[in-house]
Amino acid sequence: MTAATEFETANSTYSSTFSKGDLALPPARKVAVVVCMDARIDPAAALGLSEGDAHVIRNAGGRSSDALRSVIILQRLLGTKEIVVVHHTDCGMLTFSDTDLRGIVKEQTGHSVDHVAFLPFKDLEESVREDVEFFRKSPLVLDVPVTGYIYDVKTGRIDKVE
Amino acid sequence: MTAATEFETANSTYSSTFSKGDLALPPARKVAVVVCMDARIDPAAALGLSEGDAHVIRNAGGRSSDALRSVIILQRLLGTKEIVVVHHTDCGMLTFSDTDLRGIVKEQTGHSVDHVAFLPFKDLEESVREDVEFFRKSPLVLDVPVTGYIYDVKTGRIDKVE
Repeated sequence: MTAATEFETANSTYSSTFSKGDLALPPARKVAVVVCMDARIDPAAALGLSEGDAHVIRNAGGRSSDALRSVIILQRLLGTKEIVVVHHTDCGMLTFSDTDLRGIVKEQTGHSVDHVAFLPFKDLEESVREDVEFFRKSPLVLDVPVTGYIYDVKTGRIDKVE
Repeated sequence: MTAATEFETANSTYSSTFSKGDLALPPARKVAVVVCMDARIDPAAALGLSEGDAHVIRNAGGRSSDALRSVIILQRLLGTKEIVVVHHTDCGMLTFSDTDLRGIVKEQTGHSVDHVAFLPFKDLEESVREDVEFFRKSPLVLDVPVTGYIYDVKTGRIDKVE
Protein backbone atom coordinates (compact mmCIF):
# COMPACT_ATOMS: atom_id res chain seq x y z
CA MET A 1 0.00 0.00 0.00
CA THR A 2 1.46 3.37 -1.02
CA ALA A 3 1.14 6.55 1.02
CA ALA A 4 -0.78 7.96 -1.97
CA THR A 5 -3.54 5.38 -1.46
CA GLU A 6 -3.69 6.27 2.23
CA PHE A 7 -3.92 9.97 1.27
CA GLU A 8 -6.94 9.18 -0.93
CA THR A 9 -8.72 7.52 1.99
CA ALA A 10 -7.90 10.35 4.39
CA ASN A 11 -8.96 12.94 1.80
CA SER A 12 -12.29 11.23 1.30
CA THR A 13 -13.06 11.89 4.97
CA TYR A 14 -11.68 15.47 4.82
CA SER A 15 -13.69 16.43 1.74
CA SER A 16 -16.91 14.86 3.06
CA THR A 17 -17.23 17.68 5.62
CA PHE A 18 -15.33 20.39 3.68
CA SER A 19 -16.81 23.86 4.21
CA LYS A 20 -14.14 26.24 2.86
CA GLY A 21 -15.16 26.21 -0.80
CA ASP A 22 -15.74 29.94 -1.12
CA LEU A 23 -12.31 31.32 -0.29
CA ALA A 24 -10.66 33.91 -2.56
CA LEU A 25 -7.35 33.29 -4.31
CA PRO A 26 -5.44 36.23 -2.71
CA PRO A 27 -4.33 35.51 0.88
CA ALA A 28 -6.63 37.05 3.53
CA ARG A 29 -3.75 38.03 5.81
CA LYS A 30 -1.48 39.24 2.95
CA VAL A 31 1.52 37.35 4.31
CA ALA A 32 3.78 34.63 2.90
CA VAL A 33 5.49 32.17 5.22
CA VAL A 34 8.75 30.51 4.14
CA VAL A 35 9.30 27.40 6.26
CA CYS A 36 11.52 24.33 6.15
CA MET A 37 9.86 21.23 4.64
CA ASP A 38 10.63 19.25 7.83
CA ALA A 39 8.02 16.55 8.54
CA ARG A 40 7.75 17.54 12.21
CA ILE A 41 6.47 21.07 11.49
CA ASP A 42 2.80 21.80 10.84
CA PRO A 43 2.95 25.51 9.92
CA ALA A 44 -0.84 26.01 9.97
CA ALA A 45 -1.16 24.62 13.50
CA ALA A 46 2.04 26.21 14.83
CA LEU A 47 1.27 29.71 13.53
CA GLY A 48 -2.52 29.74 13.77
CA LEU A 49 -3.28 29.78 10.04
CA SER A 50 -6.68 28.89 8.64
CA GLU A 51 -7.32 27.93 5.03
CA GLY A 52 -7.18 31.13 2.94
CA ASP A 53 -4.95 33.09 5.34
CA ALA A 54 -1.43 32.88 3.93
CA HIS A 55 0.66 31.25 1.25
CA VAL A 56 3.10 28.73 2.65
CA ILE A 57 6.36 28.12 0.79
CA ARG A 58 8.36 25.14 1.99
CA ASN A 59 11.74 23.78 0.89
CA ALA A 60 14.82 22.15 2.37
CA GLY A 61 15.91 24.57 5.10
CA GLY A 62 13.25 27.19 4.40
CA ARG A 63 15.78 29.02 2.24
CA SER A 64 14.87 32.42 0.78
CA SER A 65 16.80 32.20 -2.48
CA ASP A 66 14.90 29.02 -3.35
CA ALA A 67 11.61 30.79 -2.53
CA LEU A 68 12.28 33.92 -4.62
CA ARG A 69 10.30 32.81 -7.70
CA SER A 70 7.25 32.14 -5.52
CA VAL A 71 7.59 35.38 -3.54
CA ILE A 72 7.83 37.49 -6.70
CA ILE A 73 4.62 35.90 -8.01
CA LEU A 74 2.86 36.57 -4.68
CA GLN A 75 3.97 40.18 -4.36
CA ARG A 76 3.45 41.23 -7.97
CA LEU A 77 0.21 39.35 -8.67
CA LEU A 78 -1.55 38.54 -5.39
CA GLY A 79 -0.99 41.55 -3.11
CA THR A 80 1.15 39.78 -0.50
CA LYS A 81 2.96 42.35 1.62
CA GLU A 82 4.64 40.69 4.59
CA ILE A 83 7.17 37.81 4.74
CA VAL A 84 7.93 35.49 7.65
CA VAL A 85 10.91 33.06 7.56
CA VAL A 86 10.98 30.00 9.84
CA HIS A 87 13.98 27.69 10.26
CA HIS A 88 14.14 25.10 13.05
CA THR A 89 16.27 23.20 15.55
CA ASP A 90 17.65 19.75 14.60
CA CYS A 91 17.41 20.67 10.91
CA GLY A 92 18.84 18.17 8.42
CA MET A 93 20.57 21.10 6.68
CA LEU A 94 22.95 21.33 9.65
CA THR A 95 24.20 17.78 9.05
CA PHE A 96 25.93 17.86 5.65
CA SER A 97 27.93 20.02 3.25
CA ASP A 98 27.52 20.56 -0.50
CA THR A 99 30.71 18.52 -0.99
CA ASP A 100 29.23 15.58 1.00
CA LEU A 101 25.96 15.46 -0.90
CA ARG A 102 27.52 16.06 -4.32
CA GLY A 103 29.79 13.08 -3.60
CA ILE A 104 26.85 10.85 -2.60
CA VAL A 105 24.82 11.74 -5.70
CA LYS A 106 27.81 11.24 -8.00
CA GLU A 107 28.54 7.88 -6.42
CA GLN A 108 24.93 6.63 -6.49
CA THR A 109 23.83 7.98 -9.88
CA GLY A 110 27.00 8.58 -11.86
CA HIS A 111 25.83 12.15 -12.52
CA SER A 112 27.67 15.25 -11.39
CA VAL A 113 25.63 17.81 -9.47
CA ASP A 114 28.59 20.08 -8.83
CA HIS A 115 26.51 22.95 -10.29
CA VAL A 116 23.74 22.48 -7.69
CA ALA A 117 23.81 24.52 -4.47
CA PHE A 118 21.98 22.44 -1.87
CA LEU A 119 22.05 25.41 0.55
CA PRO A 120 22.98 23.65 3.80
CA PHE A 121 24.09 25.76 6.78
CA LYS A 122 26.27 25.45 9.87
CA ASP A 123 24.65 27.97 12.21
CA LEU A 124 20.90 28.17 12.64
CA GLU A 125 20.63 31.76 13.87
CA GLU A 126 22.96 32.89 11.09
CA SER A 127 20.92 31.07 8.44
CA VAL A 128 17.76 32.86 9.60
CA ARG A 129 19.50 36.25 9.53
CA GLU A 130 20.92 35.50 6.10
CA ASP A 131 17.50 34.59 4.71
CA VAL A 132 15.77 37.60 6.26
CA GLU A 133 18.49 39.85 4.79
CA PHE A 134 18.14 38.15 1.41
CA PHE A 135 14.54 39.36 1.11
CA ARG A 136 15.27 42.78 2.63
CA LYS A 137 18.08 43.45 0.17
CA SER A 138 16.72 41.89 -3.00
CA PRO A 139 15.81 44.56 -5.57
CA LEU A 140 13.11 42.16 -6.80
CA VAL A 141 11.30 42.04 -3.45
CA LEU A 142 9.03 44.82 -2.13
CA ASP A 143 10.17 46.79 0.91
CA VAL A 144 7.87 45.05 3.43
CA PRO A 145 8.21 43.68 6.99
CA VAL A 146 10.36 40.52 7.02
CA THR A 147 10.64 38.62 10.31
CA GLY A 148 12.72 35.52 11.04
CA TYR A 149 12.12 32.80 13.64
CA ILE A 150 13.63 29.57 14.89
CA TYR A 151 11.04 26.86 15.59
CA ASP A 152 12.04 24.42 18.34
CA VAL A 153 10.98 20.90 17.36
CA LYS A 154 11.14 19.82 21.01
CA THR A 155 8.76 22.49 22.32
CA GLY A 156 6.75 23.66 19.32
CA ARG A 157 7.80 27.20 20.18
CA ILE A 158 9.01 29.92 17.77
CA ASP A 159 11.68 32.36 18.90
CA LYS A 160 12.27 35.57 17.01
CA VAL A 161 15.78 36.03 15.61
CA GLU A 162 15.17 39.37 13.92
CA MET B 1 0.01 44.91 13.92
CA THR B 2 1.98 42.57 11.67
CA ALA B 3 0.99 38.99 10.91
CA ALA B 4 4.28 38.00 12.57
CA THR B 5 3.06 39.39 15.90
CA GLU B 6 -0.19 37.47 15.50
CA PHE B 7 1.81 34.31 14.74
CA GLU B 8 3.71 34.77 18.02
CA THR B 9 0.46 34.93 19.96
CA ALA B 10 -1.02 31.89 18.19
CA ASN B 11 2.23 29.97 18.67
CA SER B 12 2.25 30.69 22.37
CA THR B 13 -1.06 28.82 22.63
CA TYR B 14 0.12 26.00 20.31
CA SER B 15 3.36 25.41 22.20
CA SER B 16 1.67 25.51 25.61
CA THR B 17 0.06 22.14 24.91
CA PHE B 18 2.71 20.76 22.48
CA SER B 19 3.24 17.01 22.86
CA LYS B 20 5.21 16.02 19.74
CA GLY B 21 8.70 16.80 21.02
CA ASP B 22 10.12 13.32 20.53
CA LEU B 23 9.70 12.83 16.79
CA ALA B 24 12.61 11.59 14.66
CA LEU B 25 14.07 13.64 11.80
CA PRO B 26 13.39 11.07 9.01
CA PRO B 27 9.74 11.03 7.88
CA ALA B 28 7.70 8.19 9.44
CA ARG B 29 5.77 7.51 6.23
CA LYS B 30 8.83 7.87 3.93
CA VAL B 31 6.95 10.09 1.51
CA ALA B 32 7.47 13.64 0.23
CA VAL B 33 4.52 15.75 -0.88
CA VAL B 34 5.02 18.53 -3.43
CA VAL B 35 2.06 20.92 -3.23
CA CYS B 36 1.25 24.40 -4.48
CA MET B 37 1.79 27.17 -1.89
CA ASP B 38 -1.86 28.29 -2.30
CA ALA B 39 -3.30 29.77 0.89
CA ARG B 40 -6.51 27.75 0.58
CA ILE B 41 -4.79 24.36 0.87
CA ASP B 42 -3.91 22.79 4.22
CA PRO B 43 -1.93 19.71 3.08
CA ALA B 44 -1.78 18.13 6.54
CA ALA B 45 -5.57 18.29 6.98
CA ALA B 46 -6.40 17.43 3.36
CA LEU B 47 -4.12 14.35 3.20
CA GLY B 48 -4.30 13.16 6.79
CA LEU B 49 -0.72 13.96 7.80
CA SER B 50 0.39 14.16 11.41
CA GLU B 51 3.58 15.86 12.59
CA GLY B 52 6.51 13.59 11.69
CA ASP B 53 4.79 11.77 8.82
CA ALA B 54 6.03 13.41 5.63
CA HIS B 55 8.09 16.28 4.32
CA VAL B 56 5.98 18.90 2.59
CA ILE B 57 7.54 20.95 -0.21
CA ARG B 58 5.50 23.93 -1.37
CA ASN B 59 6.10 26.47 -4.11
CA ALA B 60 4.17 28.44 -6.73
CA GLY B 61 2.27 25.79 -8.66
CA GLY B 62 3.73 22.80 -6.80
CA ARG B 63 6.33 22.49 -9.58
CA SER B 64 8.73 19.55 -9.56
CA SER B 65 11.76 21.25 -11.08
CA ASP B 66 11.66 23.84 -8.30
CA ALA B 67 11.45 21.02 -5.72
CA LEU B 68 14.36 18.96 -7.09
CA ARG B 69 16.99 20.26 -4.65
CA SER B 70 14.75 19.36 -1.72
CA VAL B 71 13.81 15.92 -3.12
CA ILE B 72 17.46 14.98 -3.71
CA ILE B 73 18.26 15.86 -0.08
CA LEU B 74 15.31 13.76 1.15
CA GLN B 75 16.06 10.72 -0.97
CA ARG B 76 19.82 10.64 -0.49
CA LEU B 77 19.96 11.59 3.20
CA LEU B 78 16.61 10.88 4.85
CA GLY B 79 15.31 7.65 3.30
CA THR B 80 12.28 9.15 1.54
CA LYS B 81 10.98 6.73 -1.08
CA GLU B 82 7.65 7.90 -2.45
CA ILE B 83 6.63 11.23 -4.06
CA VAL B 84 3.16 12.75 -4.35
CA VAL B 85 2.50 15.85 -6.48
CA VAL B 86 -0.59 18.02 -5.86
CA HIS B 87 -1.71 20.89 -8.10
CA HIS B 88 -5.15 22.50 -7.72
CA THR B 89 -8.11 24.16 -9.42
CA ASP B 90 -8.25 27.97 -9.68
CA CYS B 91 -4.44 28.13 -9.42
CA GLY B 92 -2.82 31.52 -9.88
CA MET B 93 -0.31 29.88 -12.24
CA LEU B 94 -3.10 29.53 -14.81
CA THR B 95 -3.59 33.30 -14.95
CA PHE B 96 -0.33 34.70 -16.35
CA SER B 97 2.59 34.02 -18.68
CA ASP B 98 6.32 34.46 -18.16
CA THR B 99 6.15 37.41 -20.58
CA ASP B 100 3.39 39.08 -18.50
CA LEU B 101 5.21 38.77 -15.19
CA ARG B 102 8.63 39.66 -16.59
CA GLY B 103 7.05 42.84 -17.96
CA ILE B 104 5.47 43.71 -14.59
CA VAL B 105 8.72 43.18 -12.66
CA LYS B 106 10.74 45.19 -15.19
CA GLU B 107 8.22 48.04 -15.05
CA GLN B 108 7.97 48.10 -11.24
CA THR B 109 11.62 47.52 -10.30
CA GLY B 110 13.65 48.47 -13.35
CA HIS B 111 15.34 45.05 -13.20
CA SER B 112 15.16 42.45 -15.93
CA VAL B 113 14.09 38.96 -14.86
CA ASP B 114 14.13 37.59 -18.39
CA HIS B 115 16.39 34.79 -17.10
CA VAL B 116 13.79 33.64 -14.54
CA ALA B 117 11.33 30.88 -15.45
CA PHE B 118 8.24 31.49 -13.30
CA LEU B 119 6.81 28.11 -14.41
CA PRO B 120 3.16 29.08 -15.05
CA PHE B 121 0.94 26.64 -16.94
CA LYS B 122 -2.13 26.68 -19.18
CA ASP B 123 -3.60 23.25 -18.55
CA LEU B 124 -3.91 21.82 -15.06
CA GLU B 125 -4.03 18.14 -15.91
CA GLU B 126 -1.07 18.57 -18.24
CA SER B 127 0.95 20.38 -15.57
CA VAL B 128 0.41 17.49 -13.15
CA ARG B 129 1.46 14.93 -15.79
CA GLU B 130 4.51 17.03 -16.64
CA ASP B 131 5.59 17.23 -13.01
CA VAL B 132 5.03 13.52 -12.35
CA GLU B 133 7.08 12.71 -15.47
CA PHE B 134 9.80 15.11 -14.38
CA PHE B 135 10.47 13.04 -11.26
CA ARG B 136 10.03 9.71 -13.06
CA LYS B 137 12.55 10.63 -15.73
CA SER B 138 15.13 12.55 -13.74
CA PRO B 139 18.37 10.58 -13.42
CA LEU B 140 18.88 12.31 -10.07
CA VAL B 141 15.66 10.92 -8.58
CA LEU B 142 15.25 7.35 -7.30
CA ASP B 143 12.91 5.02 -9.19
CA VAL B 144 10.01 5.22 -6.69
CA PRO B 145 6.21 5.55 -6.91
CA VAL B 146 5.21 9.06 -8.05
CA THR B 147 1.51 9.92 -8.04
CA GLY B 148 -0.13 13.16 -9.20
CA TYR B 149 -3.41 14.72 -8.06
CA ILE B 150 -5.57 17.76 -8.67
CA TYR B 151 -7.03 19.27 -5.48
CA ASP B 152 -10.37 20.98 -5.95
CA VAL B 153 -10.49 24.17 -3.86
CA LYS B 154 -14.30 24.17 -3.99
CA THR B 155 -14.74 20.66 -2.59
CA GLY B 156 -11.49 19.86 -0.76
CA ARG B 157 -11.28 16.69 -2.84
CA ILE B 158 -8.19 15.26 -4.58
CA ASP B 159 -8.57 13.49 -7.93
CA LYS B 160 -5.83 11.28 -9.25
CA VAL B 161 -4.37 12.29 -12.62
CA GLU B 162 -1.76 9.56 -12.85
